[in-house]
Amino acid sequence: MTATYETNRGRIIAVAAELFARNGYHATGIAELGRAVGLGRGALYHYIGSKESVLYAISKDQVDKMNAYAEQVLDSGLDAEAALREMARGLLRNIAVHRAEWTVFFREYNALTGDRRDRVIAARERYEGYWRQALDYGVRSGVLRPTPRLLVKGILGMLNYTYLWFTSEGELSPEELADLFMDALINGIHS
Amino acid sequence: MTATYETNRGRIIAVAAELFARNGYHATGIAELGRAVGLGRGALYHYIGSKESVLYAISKDQVDKMNAYAEQVLDSGLDAEAALREMARGLLRNIAVHRAEWTVFFREYNALTGDRRDRVIAARERYEGYWRQALDYGVRSGVLRPTPRLLVKGILGMLNYTYLWFTSEGELSPEELADLFMDALINGIHS
Repeated sequence: MTATYETNRGRIIAVAAELFARNGYHATGIAELGRAVGLGRGALYHYIGSKESVLYAISKDQVDKMNAYAEQVLDSGLDAEAALREMARGLLRNIAVHRAEWTVFFREYNALTGDRRDRVIAARERYEGYWRQALDYGVRSGVLRPTPRLLVKGILGMLNYTYLWFTSEGELSPEELADLFMDALINGIHS
Repeated sequence: MTATYETNRGRIIAVAAELFARNGYHATGIAELGRAVGLGRGALYHYIGSKESVLYAISKDQVDKMNAYAEQVLDSGLDAEAALREMARGLLRNIAVHRAEWTVFFREYNALTGDRRDRVIAARERYEGYWRQALDYGVRSGVLRPTPRLLVKGILGMLNYTYLWFTSEGELSPEELADLFMDALINGIHS
């Protein structure tokens, strides 16, 4: 894998994410993707193999990045509250930049089959696991109270759902929005 | 509009929601919907007009129900915390029962055009407005602290996102899950 190969492949996947987000995965043909990136069928095949492998890359790449980021945060020595806030900031920053990819992921990941599907689900579960680790770390260090396991799904819902409405051209940066949500969740909205 | 007309139309819309959720809105043809409900093109047209009008009904009916429910809760004389909890319970109960409709709504509402699109967006904004009213009511009555307006998007994200993962066959009922989320949000997760 040369650097040029990776650059070209990355560009194809980014263009595909935009097309799939706008027109739907099933409605977008390989020929249309080829026209959008200026490559014929053979050259395109060299980079991506099949349409499903593009959907897989779109879905998996961002989740992998978020897993790497969560590991880094959890290894950084930050206290639990700061770690939770940093994980939220990292996720909202990524969603703001890769909104097309997250749109395609949430809308279309059901179209993945077999191994690809299993690997994306496993990566998602790993990511949930890191959030649970951060909450457990908070409980162990006396900063957070124990909460039910399913709360992680609620926290991720709060953050993930931003792919539907958040634009970084708005009043808040992704980091400020993450802080706003984490403030409410950590401190509660009770008076 | 006779009762039979409404019953038949409701059944067609429910079957369409299942088909669109499973196979995608664009990939599902009117002929396929006709076969699934056992009606020819003419009879189907009598009930639903166009494919887009089915998508509109799927998207709008549940939001309308949630708006009616929120109005009822806000008029019921419940205190603000109880009202928030009740609105969360109502939403999660509806999503658990109408998961196909919510899946189609979140995935496909972008396919709506013109007036239909505007009306669905307006109904969604009305629903967000009721949540803001409940939070404001909590602040006025001294139960809740003032929070930024955008928090409503986070609360709705927490709740709406359940369409992707929650099944009422799991360990919790929709009401228990709503309580779990609202406990965390109202009281915070700080120790």
